[in-house]
Amino acid sequence: MEFNFTIALDLLGTFAFAISGIRMASGKQIDWFGAYIIGLVTAIGGGTIRDLLLNLTPFWMLDPKYFLTTGVALITIILFKEKIFKLGGTLFLFDTIGLGLFTVVGLTKSFEADLPIWVCIVMGTVTGSVGGVIRDILLNKVPLLFQKDIYALASLSGGAVYFLLKYFEIDSDVSGILAALTVILFRLIVVRFHIHLPLLKPMER
Amino acid sequence: MEFNFTIALDLLGTFAFAISGIRMASGKQIDWFGAYIIGLVTAIGGGTIRDLLLNLTPFWMLDPKYFLTTGVALITIILFKEKIFKLGGTLFLFDTIGLGLFTVVGLTKSFEADLPIWVCIVMGTVTGSVGGVIRDILLNKVPLLFQKDIYALASLSGGAVYFLLKYFEIDSDVSGILAALTVILFRLIVVRFHIHLPLLKPMER
Amino acid sequence: MEFNFTIALDLLGTFAFAISGIRMASGKQIDWFGAYIIGLVTAIGGGTIRDLLLNLTPFWMLDPKYFLTTGVALITIILFKEKIFKLGGTLFLFDTIGLGLFTVVGLTKSFEADLPIWVCIVMGTVTGSVGGVIRDILLNKVPLLFQKDIYALASLSGGAVYFLLKYFEIDSDVSGILAALTVILFRLIVVRFHIHLPLLKPMER
Repeated sequence: MEFNFTIALDLLGTFAFAISGIRMASGKQIDWFGAYIIGLVTAIGGGTIRDLLLNLTPFWMLDPKYFLTTGVALITIILFKEKIFKLGGTLFLFDTIGLGLFTVVGLTKSFEADLPIWVCIVMGTVTGSVGGVIRDILLNKVPLLFQKDIYALASLSGGAVYFLLKYFEIDSDVSGILAALTVILFRLIVVRFHIHLPLLKPMER
Repeated sequence: MEFNFTIALDLLGTFAFAISGIRMASGKQIDWFGAYIIGLVTAIGGGTIRDLLLNLTPFWMLDPKYFLTTGVALITIILFKEKIFKLGGTLFLFDTIGLGLFTVVGLTKSFEADLPIWVCIVMGTVTGSVGGVIRDILLNKVPLLFQKDIYALASLSGGAVYFLLKYFEIDSDVSGILAALTVILFRLIVVRFHIHLPLLKPMER
Repeated sequence: MEFNFTIALDLLGTFAFAISGIRMASGKQIDWFGAYIIGLVTAIGGGTIRDLLLNLTPFWMLDPKYFLTTGVALITIILFKEKIFKLGGTLFLFDTIGLGLFTVVGLTKSFEADLPIWVCIVMGTVTGSVGGVIRDILLNKVPLLFQKDIYALASLSGGAVYFLLKYFEIDSDVSGILAALTVILFRLIVVRFHIHLPLLKPMER
């Protein structure tokens, strides 16, 4: 039960991030195969960097389902482009859900590796946000992460909630779900109300 | 015999990729030393990422010959710029040979690490193509890989042939050579006849 | 004594690189949190890649002081922007000091891992210069490293001096300090007198 639940969340997050990567690749003279790779890297990039930092085997080598899910995302986009175009808000929601789920995956995996709490929180943020950074680098843009605080800060807030609940000995699954919801709600609220941190003003040389 | 043959192919691939990196760096206000590093990263980048993913010691740490070969490539370019300019087609051929050889190096190394076949094929593609992606990122361009399918798809096709031949218990060296030839011919044919996959059309936001 | 001395140098280098990253992020529509991350990546990027290549636990996971030092750098910039603006030359000096110190950290750490001398020298250069390369990639620029030889060449010269002194059995601390000074003086002199290697001239396709 718990196992299936985790798998469902993991694949949903993979699907959402793959969609975001493929979508961003569209209209840039990139063919289907290139779009597939951009989607794949967006979906598995954060977890791969996390696993390299933790000296674990990259998760996607152990199971081809992440590659297959990305393939489903590509086919979905090719077949239902028009409908997905209309569902712009839904995509933002999916992307945010992915961030929330992947943050919790990162938190859980580092917690099981017996790392200090602050390292776990960093790993949650890395898992949730680095895929998008790599996507933006490959498409030659200044990563969105650095222009809008919502991404990484939302992920950090989820990490804080996760360990607060663990401290009060809340069940691990419940902590994970509440942490994911925190990330998602945090980002939704911040974007809805145009909240952001101050920008760093220019300094002439 | 087999040993020398492999080394020759490996160094030829290194030389070809180094040339491609140094060449792409030319005319961009980059000095000789910067060009050397771009060439080096193009040549060893794919194999380094592969080794990090497989948790192996990066191959170039075990033997300085990759650094030396890149130095030879730089000197060759500085001395024979005019002639290399005229041999544009030959360079494309060398680059393609490099892709073929490095794909087989990646396939062999992962096969020896007892990885599943699909992971080996991915590693062959990573070994053959990631160096060029890093080169393009360093030079601030959208990686060529994402604009022309030929690169990564050719590499994948070589992986498929490699394991097909292994399945029929063909000798390992022969499989490797035929796989490399597949990659090379695939890319030559695709480019010659302007074959490409459909592009992913734009989606407005 | 030796321990405290090393820590002081390490943190000073971290602070200097964090300042350089945060400063470069200013005026680019990047908020405080984004600037913090750019500063952090500039400071820890080189050492992280070194540790991944050497298959060691990334150094910053073992101690939060690098994250805290970057936070101090961010606060310093926010509070004293005007003054730091006026101290432009001082910043260049700090950045150069960081390069010198981190080169020695990289040399020492790889020497202790029993690597061949040439690999140690490469690791010193990676530790000193890769953080700045990642910073430039994130901010979507052609890395400075490739436009001015001083950075990586200065680092290499420090590595050469370090092992020359080791060969004559000079005390390890003294070797380190002299190597760092070599890097710093090399870069100061080269920049002051506009010395640079020849540029690689364009080749038409």
